[in-house]
Amino acid sequence: MKYVYEFIGTFFLVLTVGMVIVGPDAAPPGFAPLAIGTVFAVMIFDRGYYSGGHLNPAVSLAVAVRGKIPYSTMVIYWVAQIVAGAVAAYLVLWLKGANAEIPTVDLNAVMMQALVAEFLFTFALCFMVLNVATAKGTANNSFYGWAIGFTVLAGAYAVGTISGGAFNPAVAVGLTVMNISSWVNIWIYLVAQLLAAVVAAFVFKAANPEDK
Amino acid sequence: MKYVYEFIGTFFLVLTVGMVIVGPDAAPPGFAPLAIGTVFAVMIFDRGYYSGGHLNPAVSLAVAVRGKIPYSTMVIYWVAQIVAGAVAAYLVLWLKGANAEIPTVDLNAVMMQALVAEFLFTFALCFMVLNVATAKGTANNSFYGWAIGFTVLAGAYAVGTISGGAFNPAVAVGLTVMNISSWVNIWIYLVAQLLAAVVAAFVFKAANPEDK
Amino acid sequence: MKYVYEFIGTFFLVLTVGMVIVGPDAAPPGFAPLAIGTVFAVMIFDRGYYSGGHLNPAVSLAVAVRGKIPYSTMVIYWVAQIVAGAVAAYLVLWLKGANAEIPTVDLNAVMMQALVAEFLFTFALCFMVLNVATAKGTANNSFYGWAIGFTVLAGAYAVGTISGGAFNPAVAVGLTVMNISSWVNIWIYLVAQLLAAVVAAFVFKAANPEDK
Amino acid sequence: MKYVYEFIGTFFLVLTVGMVIVGPDAAPPGFAPLAIGTVFAVMIFDRGYYSGGHLNPAVSLAVAVRGKIPYSTMVIYWVAQIVAGAVAAYLVLWLKGANAEIPTVDLNAVMMQALVAEFLFTFALCFMVLNVATAKGTANNSFYGWAIGFTVLAGAYAVGTISGGAFNPAVAVGLTVMNISSWVNIWIYLVAQLLAAVVAAFVFKAANPEDK
Repeated sequence: MKYVYEFIGTFFLVLTVGMVIVGPDAAPPGFAPLAIGTVFAVMIFDRGYYSGGHLNPAVSLAVAVRGKIPYSTMVIYWVAQIVAGAVAAYLVLWLKGANAEIPTVDLNAVMMQALVAEFLFTFALCFMVLNVATAKGTANNSFYGWAIGFTVLAGAYAVGTISGGAFNPAVAVGLTVMNISSWVNIWIYLVAQLLAAVVAAFVFKAANPEDK
Repeated sequence: MKYVYEFIGTFFLVLTVGMVIVGPDAAPPGFAPLAIGTVFAVMIFDRGYYSGGHLNPAVSLAVAVRGKIPYSTMVIYWVAQIVAGAVAAYLVLWLKGANAEIPTVDLNAVMMQALVAEFLFTFALCFMVLNVATAKGTANNSFYGWAIGFTVLAGAYAVGTISGGAFNPAVAVGLTVMNISSWVNIWIYLVAQLLAAVVAAFVFKAANPEDK
Repeated sequence: MKYVYEFIGTFFLVLTVGMVIVGPDAAPPGFAPLAIGTVFAVMIFDRGYYSGGHLNPAVSLAVAVRGKIPYSTMVIYWVAQIVAGAVAAYLVLWLKGANAEIPTVDLNAVMMQALVAEFLFTFALCFMVLNVATAKGTANNSFYGWAIGFTVLAGAYAVGTISGGAFNPAVAVGLTVMNISSWVNIWIYLVAQLLAAVVAAFVFKAANPEDK
Repeated sequence: MKYVYEFIGTFFLVLTVGMVIVGPDAAPPGFAPLAIGTVFAVMIFDRGYYSGGHLNPAVSLAVAVRGKIPYSTMVIYWVAQIVAGAVAAYLVLWLKGANAEIPTVDLNAVMMQALVAEFLFTFALCFMVLNVATAKGTANNSFYGWAIGFTVLAGAYAVGTISGGAFNPAVAVGLTVMNISSWVNIWIYLVAQLLAAVVAAFVFKAANPEDK
């Protein structure tokens, strides 16, 4: 059932991302990051204690490198998350209908900036998950969902206009299915995000040698 | 007194919904979901530990199917919630006065999309309540009000312009009393929302066979 | 020192209220309730465990009627809160300078609506304080500041354009010192708010006969 | 490693401050304080239990005067925070590119108001940290990050247009590196902020003689 939950949570995340940035009736300027950070936060609270509430292949990678889930579980999480992102993206296109107004992000035109932006905030996100949801020092807190979800809110305000603010391969797939970004450029998201996940895990492990 | 509390909480929820979407002096574009999600969240915290803080007949149905309240209690909750929604709607019309500017939602024009939108986010809402307010694994958390209330915030940003973003039969009655939606279309809300509640309860029970 | 804290907290509350609604450089449309609800919430967390974090004479009255503080303490709290509201209001006028743009609310023109609006949300606010900060069933929660502060956020979005959204005699004094409302109409605020406090205390006591 | 964490947290704070206030693609009017308060809050949750999560030399000073860290530690924190602020500011300029639109704040033109504004909200911030993150009475709460971070949110709405709303010497350095404020005026920030930190510590100690 954990995989079902990762599917449900990632589905609602990417569905909300798409609905608030694709017109007609996209969220008014400035509100998309609030809606996206919020849906991520609440979906983590939803069953985070149960599946981990990753909803993001980069997060699952960081948690696996840190040693909290086996790589075999990670792969199944990845499938659930990516399929959920694609399904949600197709549903957005159906709900918006024939008059959908697709905004576009050209990662190739600002490649270095996009790589840096996606790397930095995916690092912040994965490092946050390791610190507030897997560390002994923050056990049993009631803030983990907000801390993780609202890192994305802050990142979306900070660099959303540069890179689209995905910080998440499942969201990257969703953005590409909706033609917001192009398949040719998806490697930019994937390289920056997966590298950030690995770096976050190693920094965490270096800072917490006693917390296995 | 539990019924009194369900009445008070649902009353303030529907009152705020009406005041921020009916003009003159509706909330500026983009702020209505923030106000609505917030009032729902705080009203859940208000006495949620006491009455359950459902404030929503679909949530009461999901909690009853999951086995946490008897169906006889559910029926009384329904009466309190529906009456509160209607009273609040009439109060909005009085406060706004003769110059009230009533926005309208035509569910019939986008019936399939409206059914899907109301089903999806009412499912997310009911599933959230079951996970964060009735499950053993999240007992004694301090985030349940935000997680539940802000699911509605996210849903209102995502699909509010399609279906009105009710996710709640008491809100549906309120919207209809205020002539935002029409009595002819109220079945669309009720079918989608009550079906979503039952599905959420069965998914929860399948995922938590040990948590009776 | 408790009185000092009530002074500090109420001072920052009314200072923020004034700075975001008086021009030039008032908050953009829609943001004032967010700023006001937030400053109230954080000031409650600041030392709420210590002084109670009322920051509002109506709340102090409700807490006294409920039996948690003696009336003699209430009177000193009232003095600290009212003086803080007046001092903050004068500071706003100094910070805004000679070009201050004072918005106005004419309570007399919509007297019945203003009375109802201030009564309802002051009731919601006082009832919230009693439920989340003085009841046995919610002891040791980490959400009380948000629940109380964001009740004001919701109320300000809902009825702020009708009554100014004070819900607090210290804020009412501040609004009057800044000439946003007039001294002739201050009884409207005081009657509605103090009555709401008493009603909230009696409803709480009726609902919780065992919780003295 | 504590110094590394102070560096990371302050880096993301100043990076977000810069990205949302420097154009092109600054945050729409009204959203910058939300983004800034949020990134501060989540970075405090990130590892606050570990390094203290000051991310602000004035906070480190207040905590040192209150007696929770030695002055020798404070000095190393200061170096990490200031360097992080400068590095983040240069990164903002690179990400925004040759067409960067730099808003400016002239502290000298409103010197008295700027001194008062920065003093007041830096006091509120430092006093908050002492109360919610170092006091016995609030031990083990789950709200400290929000209470501290959102004090900055409220302060930015209240006085951001007067003084730039830094409340933090590391942010002041960042604003100056980005040419938003000038090096000639940086003493205004530093005097107001460091004085506020010392006053907050003494008020805390006077109010809590038993809490060493």
